[in-house]
Amino acid sequence: MTGELRVIPLRGMPELEQGDDLAVLLVEASSRAGGFEPGDILVVAQKAVSKVEGRVVHLGAVEPSPRARSLAAGADPRRIEVILGEARELLRTRPPLVIAETRHGFVCASAGVDASNAKGPDTLVLLPLDPDASAASLRERLHELTGAEVGVVVSDSFGRAWRVGTTDVALGVAGITAVLDLDGLYDSAGYELHATQIAVADEIAGAAQLVMGKLDGIPAAVVRGLRLRGDASGKDLIMPRERDLFR
Amino acid sequence: MTGELRVIPLRGMPELEQGDDLAVLLVEASSRAGGFEPGDILVVAQKAVSKVEGRVVHLGAVEPSPRARSLAAGADPRRIEVILGEARELLRTRPPLVIAETRHGFVCASAGVDASNAKGPDTLVLLPLDPDASAASLRERLHELTGAEVGVVVSDSFGRAWRVGTTDVALGVAGITAVLDLDGLYDSAGYELHATQIAVADEIAGAAQLVMGKLDGIPAAVVRGLRLRGDASGKDLIMPRERDLFR
Repeated sequence: MTGELRVIPLRGMPELEQGDDLAVLLVEASSRAGGFEPGDILVVAQKAVSKVEGRVVHLGAVEPSPRARSLAAGADPRRIEVILGEARELLRTRPPLVIAETRHGFVCASAGVDASNAKGPDTLVLLPLDPDASAASLRERLHELTGAEVGVVVSDSFGRAWRVGTTDVALGVAGITAVLDLDGLYDSAGYELHATQIAVADEIAGAAQLVMGKLDGIPAAVVRGLRLRGDASGKDLIMPRERDLFR
Repeated sequence: MTGELRVIPLRGMPELEQGDDLAVLLVEASSRAGGFEPGDILVVAQKAVSKVEGRVVHLGAVEPSPRARSLAAGADPRRIEVILGEARELLRTRPPLVIAETRHGFVCASAGVDASNAKGPDTLVLLPLDPDASAASLRERLHELTGAEVGVVVSDSFGRAWRVGTTDVALGVAGITAVLDLDGLYDSAGYELHATQIAVADEIAGAAQLVMGKLDGIPAAVVRGLRLRGDASGKDLIMPRERDLFR
């Protein structure tokens, strides 16, 4: 864990459409950056994954329910209707802001529903149905195409309680450890560390965001220099309800 | 924002004591890693800053109050007493776990009070009194010593609501932007981005944590390749109470 870390943006990706072979496009972009190396972790923005998986809704096809109308508070009730369709539970609403638990168990603004910048204000992008499956499938396809064993993180920008702004976190992971559990390990001074769990997959997603940006159309980055091979799930990063003090 | 990012651990720092000149030690460590470059951001673990600033408490000198005893639930009530002394408000208590708002306004476990690994279980380390001042003073001293203009982040590991594990965040910052505000800017497809704020200083702290680790005694790292010069405060990352939905 203690070598130098490099975070390399993957540039030159085209606008993505449903059915595009994202792995092929990522391999082309990575080739321009020197290709993948063993142990690399590929971070891909959720929005890119969702677009190729067709997780896109056009507002013209949405009929808002009375509940959506009452929550909208001046915002487009069709957008609220889409959010309600993605939500398992609403945690807080301050119209038109909705903090919800998604069907996957993620707690985030708008149940992860986001505007599709490229396709205009009438198109919304939903979270992938199964971000772990998306990550695993990308990982497998990248191995087929290049022979490289890379870890994959599907990331999204989440707000946080008590803090301003978003940081990117890992929704789905494949081939890496998501939470580094130092319980029972010893630090450099020989003292046992108790119950120290580090959400490394979230920190990796955040590091990648720093080079991906939202303005530049760079939907992916390679994080190089970590030794985190493992078999985790993005679900490992979701606080189990019985341990959650903030519901 | 879109070049390659490098995160370089600063190795070989000694165990720190009150009164140590942290800047001198950091410059020595950075020299072994090739020195600072313009635009570098130095991330230093809060614990290192607190130790040299003498923000250390020995449990032998602590007399627990009745309130601390009632909250301790089998844990050391002296430790709870120290936490209460650092807390402005308790948000949640599940003895012996305490989520508190610190005097600075940070919401975190144990009001930021942590075991000092190196000094044994009877010594606790508190957060710096003013992490922004600590960051600014380090930045100034590094400039005196090397002529380099580096940004500084004082970081700590915070848990998060709804998610497992900690990620490092920025408590104090100097010489950089903490929150990148994309409101009114346009993405690569020409659509205006509304109210997108990215907590880049927190993502920088998290990226640095990936090479610092908790087991390796590496209290600092250099983040290179970002263009984030600015004049922010760590307070910019604290959600104002009136906007906070989770109190």
